[in-house]
Amino acid sequence: MIDVLEYLAAHARRVDEALEEFLSSYEGVPEGLHEAMHYSLFPGGKRLRPALALGACEAVGGAPDMALAAACALEMIHTYSLVHDDLPCMDNDAIRRGLPTVHRKYGEAAAVLVGDGLQAMAFEMLTHVRNTSVARDIAQASGPGGMVGGQYLDVETEGTKIPLELVRRLHRLKTGALIRVGARAGAKLGKGTPAQVSALTQYGEHLGLAFQIVDDILDESGDDDVMGKRTGKDRARNKSTYPSLVGLAEARRLADEAKDRALHALAAFGLQADPLRALAEYVVSRRR
Amino acid sequence: MIDVLEYLAAHARRVDEALEEFLSSYEGVPEGLHEAMHYSLFPGGKRLRPALALGACEAVGGAPDMALAAACALEMIHTYSLVHDDLPCMDNDAIRRGLPTVHRKYGEAAAVLVGDGLQAMAFEMLTHVRNTSVARDIAQASGPGGMVGGQYLDVETEGTKIPLELVRRLHRLKTGALIRVGARAGAKLGKGTPAQVSALTQYGEHLGLAFQIVDDILDESGDDDVMGKRTGKDRARNKSTYPSLVGLAEARRLADEAKDRALHALAAFGLQADPLRALAEYVVSRRR
Repeated sequence: MIDVLEYLAAHARRVDEALEEFLSSYEGVPEGLHEAMHYSLFPGGKRLRPALALGACEAVGGAPDMALAAACALEMIHTYSLVHDDLPCMDNDAIRRGLPTVHRKYGEAAAVLVGDGLQAMAFEMLTHVRNTSVARDIAQASGPGGMVGGQYLDVETEGTKIPLELVRRLHRLKTGALIRVGARAGAKLGKGTPAQVSALTQYGEHLGLAFQIVDDILDESGDDDVMGKRTGKDRARNKSTYPSLVGLAEARRLADEAKDRALHALAAFGLQADPLRALAEYVVSRRR
Repeated sequence: MIDVLEYLAAHARRVDEALEEFLSSYEGVPEGLHEAMHYSLFPGGKRLRPALALGACEAVGGAPDMALAAACALEMIHTYSLVHDDLPCMDNDAIRRGLPTVHRKYGEAAAVLVGDGLQAMAFEMLTHVRNTSVARDIAQASGPGGMVGGQYLDVETEGTKIPLELVRRLHRLKTGALIRVGARAGAKLGKGTPAQVSALTQYGEHLGLAFQIVDDILDESGDDDVMGKRTGKDRARNKSTYPSLVGLAEARRLADEAKDRALHALAAFGLQADPLRALAEYVVSRRR
């Protein structure tokens, strides 16, 4: 049996070390900006996207280091999106990972620039990955046809009741795309076969959905102190979420269904995919 | 003699067509976001950075199309930086290129996302360039050790009198880095020799300085209608600029000196570099 928290922690350490080294050796950055960028990245959250990239790389028999640069890039992109999402003109959040958000601590202009800078650094890191299709996948997943597009839909539909189908599309873009590409990138960089890459992309697709439904559920029923951020804000904003549209019990069932589909996508994999299986169970059972 | 305005216009058409095609064939972008991104890109400005990339490519004997994708990426990055710079938490500008700024027309959240999306698309386009060193150069030039870092210094020092040396550093990062990398990328993509790449990088370095000094001068003495944006705002904000620190006449002399250095860097090039020579003259003689 995999201890998933230990697995996440081990991969998070590896990613943190690589990120720390990249950032500290990065030259020519104004001091205050460097500090704010460091603040945004450390201490990190679950580092789920990097763990998926490293896990998928291992699942196809690759050494985790083959996916390390891409894993770091994904985490920088994820972090930039959080910094921008927290801005007053977006979600206007004051707390993230139990600490003041970047704009609360360093000001709005700095927060915009921290996000912009992290995105550029992520793509710089991806130029060290000798597989341009991975960089292209990540650019697409994080761009206007992916994460940025999902965030746009989120802002555009805020305060209006929208059908489940649109909630699903929004989630697929906003959080799903980057989670999916994490697994896909890891599979490619571990030199998986096309069938393996396709299966792990499917795994990431379903896992992303499960993750987001559980996120909605935790926002509805979670504890601020455990979550490290304000909960109940979806309801306060009249946001259409899985629980608000189908009820908590059905939302929970849909999350489990998505998790089962993620596991099913791993059917052809052996023991090497056990960490990914454990991650899928973790995603639906987590309390934060 | 090169007609520099016709040269710029011809290259701008080429870049506009490529950008238009990339954007219109780009799938999965929410409609409103797509519209706002298009609005930010068209009609464009001088398209100086793409012209430098294409011109440097021609100067080393390459066909301009070899640098077209990189030229488009540079323009998308430049445009995203303008959209973010115009935000209320940054320069709070209402007019750009004679039209309402993106946040004035589509709202602040959309403007943040337009910029984020343009940056991702730029790096996606760079994955089609078969030269990762160019993508890396551009990521560095636009990131926290380049353009984003310069914008950070600009925000950080606003309203305080700073020495010329810091103004110089700020400019080198904020506008110089992207102009410099335009010439450098074109030289690399046109398959220039290392000596040619180095000479054209020098050219871009000096041209970027000349460009920024003239920008300061035009803000001080230009006409809103001609410029398509509000002028006199540096003085209103108590910004340290070349004219405010050394006077208009000396600023003009420094711009000419930088232009001469840019021309000197082209000494070993033949007629193929004439467009770049004309661009250098244009940069210091322009009225907008």
